[in-house]
Amino acid sequence: MTTFTRRNVLSAVACATGMAALPFGAPARAATPPAGKQVAGWYRYKIGSFEVTVATDGVARFKMAENHVTNIKLDTVNAALAEVFMQKDMMTTPYNPIAVNTGSKLLIIDTGTGEANYKKTNGVGGQFTANLTAAGIERTAVDAVIISHYHGDHINGLLMADNSLTYPNAEILVPAPEHKYWMDDGEMSRAGTVRVETNFKNVRRVFNTEVMKHVRTYEWGKDVVPGITVQGTPGHTPGHTSYVIASGSEQVYVQSDVTHVPFLFVRHPDWHAYYDQDGAMAEATRRKVYDMLAAEKMRVQGFHYPFPSLAHVEKDGNGYRYFPVPWSPTI
Amino acid sequence: MTTFTRRNVLSAVACATGMAALPFGAPARAATPPAGKQVAGWYRYKIGSFEVTVATDGVARFKMAENHVTNIKLDTVNAALAEVFMQKDMMTTPYNPIAVNTGSKLLIIDTGTGEANYKKTNGVGGQFTANLTAAGIERTAVDAVIISHYHGDHINGLLMADNSLTYPNAEILVPAPEHKYWMDDGEMSRAGTVRVETNFKNVRRVFNTEVMKHVRTYEWGKDVVPGITVQGTPGHTPGHTSYVIASGSEQVYVQSDVTHVPFLFVRHPDWHAYYDQDGAMAEATRRKVYDMLAAEKMRVQGFHYPFPSLAHVEKDGNGYRYFPVPWSPTI
Repeated sequence: MTTFTRRNVLSAVACATGMAALPFGAPARAATPPAGKQVAGWYRYKIGSFEVTVATDGVARFKMAENHVTNIKLDTVNAALAEVFMQKDMMTTPYNPIAVNTGSKLLIIDTGTGEANYKKTNGVGGQFTANLTAAGIERTAVDAVIISHYHGDHINGLLMADNSLTYPNAEILVPAPEHKYWMDDGEMSRAGTVRVETNFKNVRRVFNTEVMKHVRTYEWGKDVVPGITVQGTPGHTPGHTSYVIASGSEQVYVQSDVTHVPFLFVRHPDWHAYYDQDGAMAEATRRKVYDMLAAEKMRVQGFHYPFPSLAHVEKDGNGYRYFPVPWSPTI
Repeated sequence: MTTFTRRNVLSAVACATGMAALPFGAPARAATPPAGKQVAGWYRYKIGSFEVTVATDGVARFKMAENHVTNIKLDTVNAALAEVFMQKDMMTTPYNPIAVNTGSKLLIIDTGTGEANYKKTNGVGGQFTANLTAAGIERTAVDAVIISHYHGDHINGLLMADNSLTYPNAEILVPAPEHKYWMDDGEMSRAGTVRVETNFKNVRRVFNTEVMKHVRTYEWGKDVVPGITVQGTPGHTPGHTSYVIASGSEQVYVQSDVTHVPFLFVRHPDWHAYYDQDGAMAEATRRKVYDMLAAEKMRVQGFHYPFPSLAHVEKDGNGYRYFPVPWSPTI
């Protein structure tokens, strides 16, 4: 048996001689055109009797700024990207909100970037409601939208491109500490960075009069709806919130942005993403959550994990390792 | 901030207090029934100008025999399963054939377990053609079926449940050494094990008169069609075959069964699956292929990898590590 090298692989490719004529006399047929279309981006699994539908909002790719990881040099970040076979200087960020049908209520957790972004990106982003529809879930059927924190990729989808409500029949359930912070004019005046200032402006834009009519705040440490427990996980934003979904004997942790993309921040929990408003607090939260997930062998559903974003985690040196739950073609 | 433990998570769940009435006067609506349906199991990506469609045939779950890994004790196998968060004593095997549209020819590589298995398992297995159809590919449009080796999960789908041809307009391209071996009555008489004997009988069943009219053999070391190079990778079966698909500057290695499920046999290339007819030769082949994939940073498409079965690999101690290529919601 020959050794397999790039050279003999490629020389064999260069020797392509074409396919012989069909030997069984079938008439030559026109070439089938490429399909050019990806499968709808949704995936379904059960937690006890609850039904979870992950529906991707899309994936953004962009050139990283020098301070994308605020406390780590870009060269080191690039080395970490190379370890997971990703392109130098480029950030690939998936956005994956979920829907949860508890049997009595149909909920979504976070909204993605919204219809305006779908139009702006020609469908590369803002796919969430299109993928929900493909999954058989109409936006008018949603009973409640649970918001984890007030960054644009989590709230902008509350509004359609014309600023009407995306989920006209839904309560909008928001974390009390997060709502208080972003609605406080004093906090806005002390924003400190252009990024946080921009967030304040975006929050005031999204939470318009019509949205505010539907808003109800919820508290940390309680259930937001039966079976979905709220944990305060501050740092990424002051009122950043995560959830434990529990039904029967099963639990899944919905981490929101406890970590941004796992291939950087699960592996390196001490790295502070540009998006973490308080890097040190976000890191402390991250370690507490991931220590718990590893100890309890609890699955995590991660907004910025690659679709379908459900994984196991374990300790690995000073950080953590994640292992995507294998795809199941049945539920 | 409290420490997160199983206890306070679960006590919070126990404190569920129910959701308050909608505050904005919306009428109570009937609960949305669970959807109960998984997304169609296909995924598409490009290799240069070629379009690859992975379409799952399903996932089999079964209790492992003591000799599932012939040279390793079941306790050790169970420890490896625990490391990847999988259930003790249970084997989970995905089956993922692919279609390749080269622009001039529409091909499939391996067939899955076939319509008879779809009927037998109520759609848990034998899903390949249903998922192809969902992906916009009709079986009548397939120009050629490329077979990697003669195990049932790779050839049984050549036939519909009524034994008619699944791909009536396709050539059936088979590896010459594999075909010679399984069609040789002398080899059949020397099968040696019940498993190999059963395979011989199944091969003779599948390659019926109608199938044989469409068969054409291809040789190792050449292109089976332009852009798809053939590599002999014997051991799993005597004529087991893999492929390099190359277009433009991109290549993907279609490994067939060079490894069975990666969570055991990529991590532990020295473990011999029950399905490896010559365990030592299969291991030697596995190491050559994976050394090449790691050195060349070439992606691998693995029939028994979890859907969508496309991964990077690298060396890791005495074995290899695999990293699934992150899902892209666009092609």
